[in-house]
Amino acid sequence: MRFAELAIGQTAEVRRTITESDVVAFAGISGDFNPVHVDAEWAARTRFGGRVAHGMLSAGLISNVLGMRLPGAGAIYRSQTLRFTAPVRPGDTITARAEVVELVPAKRRVRLRTTCTNQDGETVVEGEATMVVDDVPDSG
Amino acid sequence: MRFAELAIGQTAEVRRTITESDVVAFAGISGDFNPVHVDAEWAARTRFGGRVAHGMLSAGLISNVLGMRLPGAGAIYRSQTLRFTAPVRPGDTITARAEVVELVPAKRRVRLRTTCTNQDGETVVEGEATMVVDDVPDSG
Amino acid sequence: MRFAELAIGQTAEVRRTITESDVVAFAGISGDFNPVHVDAEWAARTRFGGRVAHGMLSAGLISNVLGMRLPGAGAIYRSQTLRFTAPVRPGDTITARAEVVELVPAKRRVRLRTTCTNQDGETVVEGEATMVVDDVPDSG
Amino acid sequence: MRFAELAIGQTAEVRRTITESDVVAFAGISGDFNPVHVDAEWAARTRFGGRVAHGMLSAGLISNVLGMRLPGAGAIYRSQTLRFTAPVRPGDTITARAEVVELVPAKRRVRLRTTCTNQDGETVVEGEATMVVDDVPDSG
Repeated sequence: MRFAELAIGQTAEVRRTITESDVVAFAGISGDFNPVHVDAEWAARTRFGGRVAHGMLSAGLISNVLGMRLPGAGAIYRSQTLRFTAPVRPGDTITARAEVVELVPAKRRVRLRTTCTNQDGETVVEGEATMVVDDVPDSG
Repeated sequence: MRFAELAIGQTAEVRRTITESDVVAFAGISGDFNPVHVDAEWAARTRFGGRVAHGMLSAGLISNVLGMRLPGAGAIYRSQTLRFTAPVRPGDTITARAEVVELVPAKRRVRLRTTCTNQDGETVVEGEATMVVDDVPDSG
Repeated sequence: MRFAELAIGQTAEVRRTITESDVVAFAGISGDFNPVHVDAEWAARTRFGGRVAHGMLSAGLISNVLGMRLPGAGAIYRSQTLRFTAPVRPGDTITARAEVVELVPAKRRVRLRTTCTNQDGETVVEGEATMVVDDVPDSG
Repeated sequence: MRFAELAIGQTAEVRRTITESDVVAFAGISGDFNPVHVDAEWAARTRFGGRVAHGMLSAGLISNVLGMRLPGAGAIYRSQTLRFTAPVRPGDTITARAEVVELVPAKRRVRLRTTCTNQDGETVVEGEATMVVDDVPDSG
């Protein structure tokens, strides 16, 4: 979207089931092989009782909704805050949601509330993003 | 690490070359196919002059250093702030660094400064993490 | 989209740079390790003068535009024809485009012309898809 | 195979269990995150009662049998028709089979019937391929 098309209160969301395969792949990309993510034996003895997904995997879904939907292509990521409020387990279906909460026209900047919730409606990640909505190429 | 082993000023780091393959794989996991990441023709016409990596891919390296080194296995991620200060391009070698800046023994909580820099020493991501250092399984 | 929202002449497209990483990953998923895709030495001696991407990788972009844009979620894939008219090489930027060419209300069926073109406007895949536009869940 | 080695009625096949991991990976490569493939909650409410694999993932197995077995390396894919006749679910074991049905020596062209069946013998994809059997490098 162009900056002029944005309005406070606009929302967008994406939803994905986080699979064991996603967790394994994210471990491979990030190099974060913390046993709570990749060692079922170890994870079974933690407070979680089993493997949990990387927090940054849910954050990736936030990146998805911001980069693909609201504001979408042409926006530049300036900052993101993340609070990890509940574990995500392989098999959970996560909805990442963005809502426009502030517009700063002079800087073409938009602030969005970003949350991830699971299939039970429980919030697993919450925070805020700021993006600059850039001039974009004419076609694309 | 156990909480008692942590001290203010401790640091750890990991380093990785971010490849085109990492960018493609991260797009696949997150679903973030923003053209600035996956469309060379489009990206060439943006201010970046070519494809750039997802910010959350660098954040994944922070997750790596926190989950693998400092504090390492057994720590639970509570929050992360991220400021994306410069683009990361495929081929850049990124160092993610964590430094202990606060310890709250009553809550077994540690606050860390987290930064990613590129091969030229330029900061590409900066922020802070808070983690709770848990009781961990005895072996693992 | 719901069937009632579709109209002849509607179009949608997606664009992606096909990377070496995509070709390698597709080989791994499909098991199609034909040397023209994965053996640079062998491929250099063919008429193509180097590795080319799997035709079905371009077909995957058609699946993307149909499943994500037009008609999008809730449509069921009935058939697809594909003519591979020019090679796709790693580094090519491919646009997959769908255009509604026929609507059969009694069967909720839509026929679409599907084409993939490269960054030079050359058609690399052409054909047609038929999909049934289903009743979809209320939210999602 | 060289063209002269081909005969009408020849067959070849490959078999693979399609895993959840394959579906996730194919979504990542194609960008096709249609919820019927990646959103377990949404898919449960469709006629399929759960996630199904991308049709083009089965088509990738056809690409495999053609490119690896019959006619194998050196053949150039000209066209493929695909009818998706039944859903493929993660865990299904799919056999892709090719059978030579026509040979056109003047054009070194071969037409093959291509089918995918599941572990219960049900046809999930059917169609035809045409390939040109090229001169191939001497060793490879």
